[in-house]
Amino acid sequence: MKGTNYVFIATSLDGKIADKNNGIDWLNTVPNPDNIDTGFKRFMSKIDALVMGRSTFEVVMGFGIEWPYSVPVFVLSNSLKEIPETCKGKVELVSGDIKTIVEELNNKGFKHLYIDGGQTIQSFLKEDLIDELIITTIPILLGGGVPLFDELPDERKFQHLKTEVFLEQLVQSHYQRV
Amino acid sequence: MKGTNYVFIATSLDGKIADKNNGIDWLNTVPNPDNIDTGFKRFMSKIDALVMGRSTFEVVMGFGIEWPYSVPVFVLSNSLKEIPETCKGKVELVSGDIKTIVEELNNKGFKHLYIDGGQTIQSFLKEDLIDELIITTIPILLGGGVPLFDELPDERKFQHLKTEVFLEQLVQSHYQRV
Repeated sequence: MKGTNYVFIATSLDGKIADKNNGIDWLNTVPNPDNIDTGFKRFMSKIDALVMGRSTFEVVMGFGIEWPYSVPVFVLSNSLKEIPETCKGKVELVSGDIKTIVEELNNKGFKHLYIDGGQTIQSFLKEDLIDELIITTIPILLGGGVPLFDELPDERKFQHLKTEVFLEQLVQSHYQRV
Repeated sequence: MKGTNYVFIATSLDGKIADKNNGIDWLNTVPNPDNIDTGFKRFMSKIDALVMGRSTFEVVMGFGIEWPYSVPVFVLSNSLKEIPETCKGKVELVSGDIKTIVEELNNKGFKHLYIDGGQTIQSFLKEDLIDELIITTIPILLGGGVPLFDELPDERKFQHLKTEVFLEQLVQSHYQRV
Protein backbone atom coordinates (compact mmCIF):
# COMPACT_ATOMS: atom_id res chain seq x y z
CA MET A 1 0.00 0.00 0.00
CA LYS A 2 1.24 3.42 -0.95
CA GLY A 3 1.79 5.79 1.93
CA THR A 4 0.97 9.47 2.33
CA ASN A 5 3.53 12.26 2.23
CA TYR A 6 2.63 15.39 4.16
CA VAL A 7 3.94 18.93 4.30
CA PHE A 8 3.14 20.89 7.46
CA ILE A 9 4.67 24.33 7.33
CA ALA A 10 4.14 28.01 8.09
CA THR A 11 4.60 30.72 5.50
CA SER A 12 4.32 34.48 5.46
CA LEU A 13 1.57 36.15 3.43
CA ASP A 14 4.10 36.42 0.62
CA GLY A 15 4.88 32.71 0.75
CA LYS A 16 8.26 32.72 2.49
CA ILE A 17 9.46 30.16 5.00
CA ALA A 18 12.47 32.21 6.16
CA ASP A 19 13.13 35.95 6.02
CA LYS A 20 15.84 37.86 4.13
CA ASN A 21 18.41 36.90 6.77
CA ASN A 22 17.29 33.27 6.75
CA GLY A 23 15.61 33.99 10.10
CA ILE A 24 12.41 32.51 11.50
CA ASP A 25 11.68 34.88 14.42
CA TRP A 26 8.69 36.24 12.48
CA LEU A 27 7.01 32.87 13.12
CA ASN A 28 6.34 34.28 16.60
CA THR A 29 4.68 37.45 15.25
CA VAL A 30 1.39 36.24 16.73
CA PRO A 31 1.69 35.84 20.51
CA ASN A 32 0.67 32.47 21.92
CA PRO A 33 0.93 33.09 25.69
CA ASP A 34 -0.94 29.91 26.67
CA ASN A 35 1.08 27.90 24.20
CA ILE A 36 -2.01 26.39 22.61
CA ASP A 37 -1.51 23.72 19.97
CA THR A 38 -1.90 25.29 16.55
CA GLY A 39 -2.40 21.95 14.87
CA PHE A 40 1.10 20.55 15.11
CA LYS A 41 0.54 18.02 17.91
CA ARG A 42 -2.58 16.69 16.25
CA PHE A 43 -0.70 16.47 12.95
CA MET A 44 2.28 14.67 14.51
CA SER A 45 0.00 12.08 16.11
CA LYS A 46 -0.60 10.53 12.69
CA ILE A 47 3.01 10.71 11.46
CA ASP A 48 5.21 7.59 11.37
CA ALA A 49 8.47 9.25 10.40
CA LEU A 50 10.06 12.51 9.24
CA VAL A 51 12.07 12.98 6.10
CA MET A 52 14.14 16.17 6.09
CA GLY A 53 17.04 17.66 4.24
CA ARG A 54 20.49 18.11 5.65
CA SER A 55 20.11 21.90 6.05
CA THR A 56 16.94 21.52 8.11
CA PHE A 57 18.59 18.81 10.17
CA GLU A 58 21.50 21.15 10.90
CA VAL A 59 19.09 23.96 11.81
CA VAL A 60 17.29 21.67 14.27
CA MET A 61 20.62 20.52 15.74
CA GLY A 62 21.64 24.18 16.01
CA PHE A 63 18.69 24.99 18.28
CA GLY A 64 20.72 23.38 21.05
CA ILE A 65 17.60 21.84 22.54
CA GLU A 66 16.75 18.25 23.33
CA TRP A 67 16.01 16.26 20.17
CA PRO A 68 12.38 17.30 19.55
CA TYR A 69 10.96 14.38 17.56
CA SER A 70 9.46 11.22 19.01
CA VAL A 71 9.27 9.46 15.63
CA PRO A 72 12.23 8.28 13.52
CA VAL A 73 13.84 10.97 11.40
CA PHE A 74 15.42 10.21 8.04
CA VAL A 75 17.90 12.82 6.84
CA LEU A 76 18.46 13.09 3.11
CA SER A 77 22.11 13.69 2.42
CA ASN A 78 24.69 12.60 -0.06
CA SER A 79 27.48 14.36 1.84
CA LEU A 80 26.92 13.58 5.53
CA LYS A 81 28.60 10.34 6.55
CA GLU A 82 27.75 10.22 10.22
CA ILE A 83 25.13 11.53 12.55
CA PRO A 84 26.07 13.23 15.82
CA GLU A 85 26.18 11.13 19.00
CA THR A 86 23.31 13.10 20.56
CA CYS A 87 20.75 11.82 18.11
CA LYS A 88 22.00 8.34 17.37
CA GLY A 89 19.19 5.82 17.36
CA LYS A 90 16.73 8.59 16.47
CA VAL A 91 18.13 9.74 13.16
CA GLU A 92 19.17 7.77 10.11
CA LEU A 93 20.94 9.01 7.00
CA VAL A 94 19.43 8.16 3.63
CA SER A 95 20.61 9.04 0.15
CA GLY A 96 19.77 8.54 -3.49
CA ASP A 97 16.57 8.85 -5.45
CA ILE A 98 13.72 10.17 -3.32
CA LYS A 99 11.07 8.01 -4.98
CA THR A 100 13.06 4.90 -4.03
CA ILE A 101 13.67 6.22 -0.52
CA VAL A 102 9.92 6.75 -0.03
CA GLU A 103 9.14 3.26 -1.34
CA GLU A 104 11.67 1.71 1.01
CA LEU A 105 10.28 3.62 3.97
CA ASN A 106 6.73 2.60 3.03
CA ASN A 107 7.85 -1.05 2.81
CA LYS A 108 9.34 -0.79 6.30
CA GLY A 109 5.95 0.31 7.60
CA PHE A 110 6.49 4.09 7.60
CA LYS A 111 3.33 5.04 5.72
CA HIS A 112 2.70 8.59 6.92
CA LEU A 113 5.75 10.69 6.22
CA TYR A 114 6.25 14.30 7.28
CA ILE A 115 8.40 15.91 4.59
CA ASP A 116 10.24 18.92 5.98
CA GLY A 117 12.70 21.59 4.85
CA GLY A 118 12.38 24.00 1.94
CA GLN A 119 14.63 22.22 -0.55
CA THR A 120 13.31 18.79 0.35
CA ILE A 121 9.70 19.90 -0.07
CA GLN A 122 10.55 21.42 -3.46
CA SER A 123 12.25 18.18 -4.59
CA PHE A 124 9.23 16.15 -3.52
CA LEU A 125 6.83 18.54 -5.28
CA LYS A 126 8.89 18.37 -8.49
CA GLU A 127 8.50 14.58 -8.45
CA ASP A 128 4.80 14.96 -7.54
CA LEU A 129 5.39 13.07 -4.32
CA ILE A 130 3.44 15.36 -1.97
CA ASP A 131 -0.07 14.09 -1.15
CA GLU A 132 -1.18 16.59 1.47
CA LEU A 133 -0.21 20.16 2.21
CA ILE A 134 -1.05 21.82 5.53
CA ILE A 135 -0.03 25.44 5.27
CA THR A 136 -0.31 27.95 8.09
CA THR A 137 -0.23 31.56 6.95
CA ILE A 138 1.27 34.15 9.29
CA PRO A 139 -0.14 37.65 8.68
CA ILE A 140 3.08 39.37 7.70
CA LEU A 141 4.69 40.36 4.41
CA LEU A 142 8.41 39.63 4.72
CA GLY A 143 9.23 41.34 1.45
CA GLY A 144 11.86 38.76 0.57
CA GLY A 145 13.46 35.59 1.85
CA VAL A 146 13.21 31.90 1.13
CA PRO A 147 10.10 30.89 -0.82
CA LEU A 148 8.18 27.71 0.00
CA PHE A 149 7.36 27.02 -3.63
CA ASP A 150 9.60 27.00 -6.67
CA GLU A 151 9.14 26.37 -10.38
CA LEU A 152 7.40 23.13 -11.34
CA PRO A 153 7.33 21.37 -14.72
CA ASP A 154 3.52 21.52 -14.74
CA GLU A 155 0.43 22.44 -12.74
CA ARG A 156 -0.69 20.40 -9.72
CA LYS A 157 -4.32 20.52 -8.67
CA PHE A 158 -5.24 20.07 -5.04
CA GLN A 159 -8.52 19.93 -3.23
CA HIS A 160 -9.22 21.94 -0.13
CA LEU A 161 -10.13 19.73 2.83
CA LYS A 162 -10.37 22.17 5.73
CA THR A 163 -9.35 25.60 6.98
CA GLU A 164 -9.00 26.53 10.64
CA VAL A 165 -8.01 29.80 12.25
CA PHE A 166 -5.83 29.67 15.36
CA LEU A 167 -5.35 32.56 17.81
CA GLU A 168 -7.64 34.57 15.50
CA GLN A 169 -4.62 35.24 13.29
CA LEU A 170 -3.13 32.04 11.90
CA VAL A 171 -4.97 30.61 8.91
CA GLN A 172 -4.25 26.90 8.48
CA SER A 173 -5.47 25.29 5.27
CA HIS A 174 -5.30 21.59 4.53
CA TYR A 175 -5.07 20.48 0.89
CA GLN A 176 -4.95 17.08 -0.75
CA ARG A 177 -3.48 16.25 -4.16
CA VAL A 178 -6.20 15.50 -6.70
CA MET B 1 -10.00 62.01 6.37
CA LYS B 2 -7.67 59.39 4.99
CA GLY B 3 -9.31 56.75 2.82
CA THR B 4 -8.81 53.01 2.65
CA ASN B 5 -7.00 51.21 -0.14
CA TYR B 6 -8.05 47.63 -0.78
CA VAL B 7 -6.63 44.72 -2.72
CA PHE B 8 -9.11 42.00 -3.71
CA ILE B 9 -7.42 39.30 -5.73
CA ALA B 10 -7.13 35.57 -6.32
CA THR B 11 -3.85 33.71 -6.21
CA SER B 12 -2.75 30.13 -6.73
CA LEU B 13 -1.36 28.15 -3.80
CA ASP B 14 2.08 29.24 -4.94
CA GLY B 15 1.10 32.92 -4.91
CA LYS B 16 0.69 33.57 -8.64
CA ILE B 17 -1.94 35.82 -10.22
CA ALA B 18 -1.30 34.60 -13.77
CA ASP B 19 0.20 31.38 -15.08
CA LYS B 20 3.39 30.81 -17.10
CA ASN B 21 1.62 31.96 -20.26
CA ASN B 22 0.16 34.99 -18.52
CA GLY B 23 -3.20 33.16 -18.54
CA ILE B 24 -5.96 33.23 -15.97
CA ASP B 25 -8.09 30.22 -17.02
CA TRP B 26 -6.96 28.43 -13.86
CA LEU B 27 -9.14 30.90 -11.92
CA ASN B 28 -12.02 28.68 -13.05
CA THR B 29 -10.41 25.50 -11.67
CA VAL B 30 -13.22 25.30 -9.12
CA PRO B 31 -16.60 25.01 -10.86
CA ASN B 32 -19.24 27.54 -9.84
CA PRO B 33 -22.30 26.29 -11.77
CA ASP B 34 -24.78 28.46 -9.85
CA ASN B 35 -22.52 31.45 -10.21
CA ILE B 36 -22.63 32.22 -6.49
CA ASP B 37 -20.95 35.39 -5.32
CA THR B 38 -17.55 34.51 -3.89
CA GLY B 39 -17.26 37.80 -2.05
CA PHE B 40 -16.73 40.14 -4.98
CA LYS B 41 -20.18 41.75 -5.12
CA ARG B 42 -20.18 42.38 -1.39
CA PHE B 43 -16.69 43.82 -1.66
CA MET B 44 -17.59 46.08 -4.58
CA SER B 45 -20.58 47.46 -2.68
CA LYS B 46 -18.22 49.43 -0.42
CA ILE B 47 -15.85 50.61 -3.16
CA ASP B 48 -15.98 54.22 -4.44
CA ALA B 49 -13.50 53.86 -7.28
CA LEU B 50 -10.93 51.57 -8.86
CA VAL B 51 -7.31 52.37 -9.47
CA MET B 52 -5.62 50.07 -11.95
CA GLY B 53 -2.51 49.96 -14.06
CA ARG B 54 -2.45 50.30 -17.82
CA SER B 55 -1.76 46.58 -18.41
CA THR B 56 -4.78 45.52 -16.37
CA PHE B 57 -6.90 48.13 -18.13
CA GLU B 58 -5.84 46.70 -21.47
CA VAL B 59 -6.59 43.17 -20.29
CA VAL B 60 -10.10 44.23 -19.23
CA MET B 61 -10.62 46.03 -22.56
CA GLY B 62 -9.40 42.90 -24.34
CA PHE B 63 -12.18 40.78 -22.81
CA GLY B 64 -14.45 42.31 -25.42
CA ILE B 65 -17.30 42.48 -22.93
CA GLU B 66 -19.41 45.40 -21.76
CA TRP B 67 -17.46 47.67 -19.41
CA PRO B 68 -17.81 45.72 -16.15
CA TYR B 69 -17.42 48.41 -13.49
CA SER B 70 -20.19 50.58 -12.09
CA VAL B 71 -17.80 52.85 -10.19
CA PRO B 72 -15.28 55.28 -11.70
CA VAL B 73 -12.02 53.71 -12.81
CA PHE B 74 -8.72 55.59 -12.68
CA VAL B 75 -6.03 54.16 -14.91
CA LEU B 76 -2.43 54.85 -13.94
CA SER B 77 -0.40 55.56 -17.02
CA ASN B 78 2.37 57.88 -18.05
CA SER B 79 2.17 56.71 -21.67
CA LEU B 80 -1.55 56.48 -22.54
CA LYS B 81 -2.88 59.82 -23.77
CA GLU B 82 -6.46 58.91 -24.52
CA ILE B 83 -9.05 56.44 -23.41
CA PRO B 84 -11.09 54.45 -25.93
CA GLU B 85 -14.53 55.81 -26.92
CA THR B 86 -16.28 52.76 -25.42
CA CYS B 87 -15.37 53.67 -21.87
CA LYS B 88 -15.35 57.46 -21.98
CA GLY B 89 -17.08 58.92 -18.96
CA LYS B 90 -16.28 55.78 -16.97
CA VAL B 91 -12.50 55.81 -17.08
CA GLU B 92 -10.03 58.57 -16.34
CA LEU B 93 -6.29 58.60 -16.90
CA VAL B 94 -4.07 59.62 -14.00
CA SER B 95 -0.32 59.88 -13.81
CA GLY B 96 2.46 60.84 -11.46
CA ASP B 97 3.23 59.98 -7.87
CA ILE B 98 0.76 57.41 -6.49
CA LYS B 99 0.68 58.96 -3.00
CA THR B 100 -0.46 62.27 -4.53
CA ILE B 101 -2.97 60.50 -6.78
CA VAL B 102 -4.51 58.77 -3.76
CA GLU B 103 -4.68 62.05 -1.81
CA GLU B 104 -6.38 63.79 -4.70
CA LEU B 105 -8.91 60.95 -5.10
CA ASN B 106 -9.60 61.01 -1.35
CA ASN B 107 -10.14 64.79 -1.51
CA LYS B 108 -12.63 64.28 -4.32
CA GLY B 109 -14.64 61.96 -2.06
CA PHE B 110 -13.27 58.62 -3.32
CA LYS B 111 -12.37 57.16 0.06
CA HIS B 112 -12.57 53.42 -0.59
CA LEU B 113 -10.26 52.53 -3.43
CA TYR B 114 -9.92 49.12 -5.05
CA ILE B 115 -6.31 48.84 -6.19
CA ASP B 116 -5.98 46.31 -9.01
CA GLY B 117 -3.33 44.83 -11.26
CA GLY B 118 -0.11 43.08 -10.31
CA GLN B 119 2.33 45.92 -10.90
CA THR B 120 0.02 48.53 -9.40
CA ILE B 121 -0.49 46.47 -6.24
CA GLN B 122 3.26 46.02 -5.92
CA SER B 123 3.86 49.78 -6.31
CA PHE B 124 1.26 50.51 -3.65
CA LEU B 125 2.73 47.92 -1.29
CA LYS B 126 6.23 49.35 -1.74
CA GLU B 127 4.89 52.77 -0.64
CA ASP B 128 2.96 51.08 2.19
CA LEU B 129 -0.30 52.35 0.72
CA ILE B 130 -2.34 49.15 1.04
CA ASP B 131 -4.66 49.10 4.06
CA GLU B 132 -6.59 45.90 3.47
CA LEU B 133 -5.81 42.70 1.58
CA ILE B 134 -8.54 40.24 0.61
CA ILE B 135 -6.85 37.22 -0.92
CA THR B 136 -8.67 34.23 -2.35
CA THR B 137 -6.52 31.13 -2.68
CA ILE B 138 -7.30 28.73 -5.52
CA PRO B 139 -6.15 25.15 -4.73
CA ILE B 140 -3.65 24.75 -7.53
CA LEU B 141 0.12 24.99 -7.83
CA LEU B 142 0.88 26.75 -11.11
CA GLY B 143 4.60 26.09 -10.83
CA GLY B 144 5.48 29.47 -12.28
CA GLY B 145 3.91 32.65 -13.59
CA VAL B 146 3.32 36.16 -12.33
CA PRO B 147 3.70 36.53 -8.55
CA LEU B 148 1.33 38.71 -6.52
CA PHE B 149 4.08 39.85 -4.16
CA ASP B 150 7.50 41.20 -4.90
CA GLU B 151 10.46 42.40 -2.85
CA LEU B 152 9.71 45.07 -0.23
CA PRO B 153 12.15 47.35 1.58
CA ASP B 154 10.93 46.06 4.93
CA GLU B 155 8.38 43.85 6.68
CA ARG B 156 4.70 44.76 6.85
CA LYS B 157 2.56 43.34 9.61
CA PHE B 158 -1.11 42.72 9.02
CA GLN B 159 -3.90 41.46 11.23
CA HIS B 160 -6.26 38.75 10.18
CA LEU B 161 -9.89 39.92 10.23
CA LYS B 162 -11.79 37.01 8.74
CA THR B 163 -11.51 33.87 6.62
CA GLU B 164 -14.34 32.37 4.60
CA VAL B 165 -14.43 29.31 2.38
CA PHE B 166 -16.49 29.45 -0.82
CA LEU B 167 -17.59 26.42 -2.83
CA GLU B 168 -15.71 24.33 -0.23
CA GLN B 169 -12.51 25.07 -2.17
CA LEU B 170 -11.75 28.80 -2.26
CA VAL B 171 -10.17 30.18 0.91
CA GLN B 172 -10.68 33.91 1.20
CA SER B 173 -8.77 35.71 3.93
CA HIS B 174 -9.17 39.35 4.86
CA TYR B 175 -6.20 41.19 6.37
CA GLN B 176 -5.76 44.73 7.64
CA ARG B 177 -2.48 46.61 7.89
CA VAL B 178 -1.37 47.01 11.52
